[in-house]
Amino acid sequence: MTMRLYGYYRSTAAYRVRIALGIKGIAAEAVAVNLVDAQQRRAEYLDKNPQGLVPALELGSGDVLSQSTAILEWLEETHPEPRLYPEDPIARARCRALCQHIACDIHPLNNLRVLKYLRGPLEQSQEDVDRWYAHWVSTGFVALERELAAADTALSMGDQPGMMEIFLIPQIYNARRFLVPLDEYPALVERDRLCQQHAAFSAAHPDSQPDSPSANG
Amino acid sequence: MTMRLYGYYRSTAAYRVRIALGIKGIAAEAVAVNLVDAQQRRAEYLDKNPQGLVPALELGSGDVLSQSTAILEWLEETHPEPRLYPEDPIARARCRALCQHIACDIHPLNNLRVLKYLRGPLEQSQEDVDRWYAHWVSTGFVALERELAAADTALSMGDQPGMMEIFLIPQIYNARRFLVPLDEYPALVERDRLCQQHAAFSAAHPDSQPDSPSANG
Repeated sequence: MTMRLYGYYRSTAAYRVRIALGIKGIAAEAVAVNLVDAQQRRAEYLDKNPQGLVPALELGSGDVLSQSTAILEWLEETHPEPRLYPEDPIARARCRALCQHIACDIHPLNNLRVLKYLRGPLEQSQEDVDRWYAHWVSTGFVALERELAAADTALSMGDQPGMMEIFLIPQIYNARRFLVPLDEYPALVERDRLCQQHAAFSAAHPDSQPDSPSANG
Repeated sequence: MTMRLYGYYRSTAAYRVRIALGIKGIAAEAVAVNLVDAQQRRAEYLDKNPQGLVPALELGSGDVLSQSTAILEWLEETHPEPRLYPEDPIARARCRALCQHIACDIHPLNNLRVLKYLRGPLEQSQEDVDRWYAHWVSTGFVALERELAAADTALSMGDQPGMMEIFLIPQIYNARRFLVPLDEYPALVERDRLCQQHAAFSAAHPDSQPDSPSANG
């Protein structure tokens, strides 16, 4: 049995895993879990992934892995070529720190369930929700821009994208979707431009997924 | 030069790193960065860690590592004994998923800068901020309780604590600090009780840190 990736076209965490599978040349069947319809809270999905979040990767053995960072580390450990992390432990730790800065300090504040809570129980206007979104993206991007503008190479694996770009490119997609201006982050925008030339990135783009309205439109 | 750990006694991310250093028997000098006074935004700290967050680990070489997950992975790679992750790749991926569930889906929604933003720009009452806090802890703890109640062993490395407890115990400390009732999470509370008997956990506790008011009181 091939792997199955449970995801949602706009989920940036699922988008990360799609890119990594593409770079490593691993086939996985896409199974759409519609977050807007709360399909991730249904019993049949909770049986697969008790955390009730996407993505989840079902292996040929029937084992189900969850949390994009854990899935990505597993892919790197079990399918090491091409490498997504630098080989030197300090360089790898620095790369992981940039990835986690996105995974912990930008993305979780801005995902769908949080924006829903702000609009629902906290009764925030759409304007305040948009300001919340832009605040956390900007805070994170200012720090990332400072670090990536000082990098020695165009991409994190020299002239090839790696784990850093696997986290960055989906977050840039998401920022654009929420109309956050990116003029102050030229180093981030340039990495995005370079990555879009890679087949693994274009194939993983939300608009290319079967559950995207643009794919059918 | 010994390592230096830049942290804050109540930062649960710094607390994680303190526990891991203790389990692995690595000495590190504690440097307090007072988050309430916004010392993490000062130029001398930003020079060390451009992300402006704690913890950061300064190595003998002068290299500075940031983001608790990245620091913990580096510690496990470079100081492998005693192990904090299971050896089997699938078991390790499952352990990482539980850790990331705390690191990405509970903690970032509840740290100081986010609670400040809710009280400040979004003008939420303390009652609404407390409800926000309890909502994200409960959502995450319900899923963790389901997974840990079904575990084969008392702790994640058999009868010894490992990476899972390094993330869990600081989050339980934080939940208690914000008066979130824990009656519905007996498996989590039992792990906390077992860990508190380990010297690495008691030495890493916020109340035992030099910058804690209780340490001086």
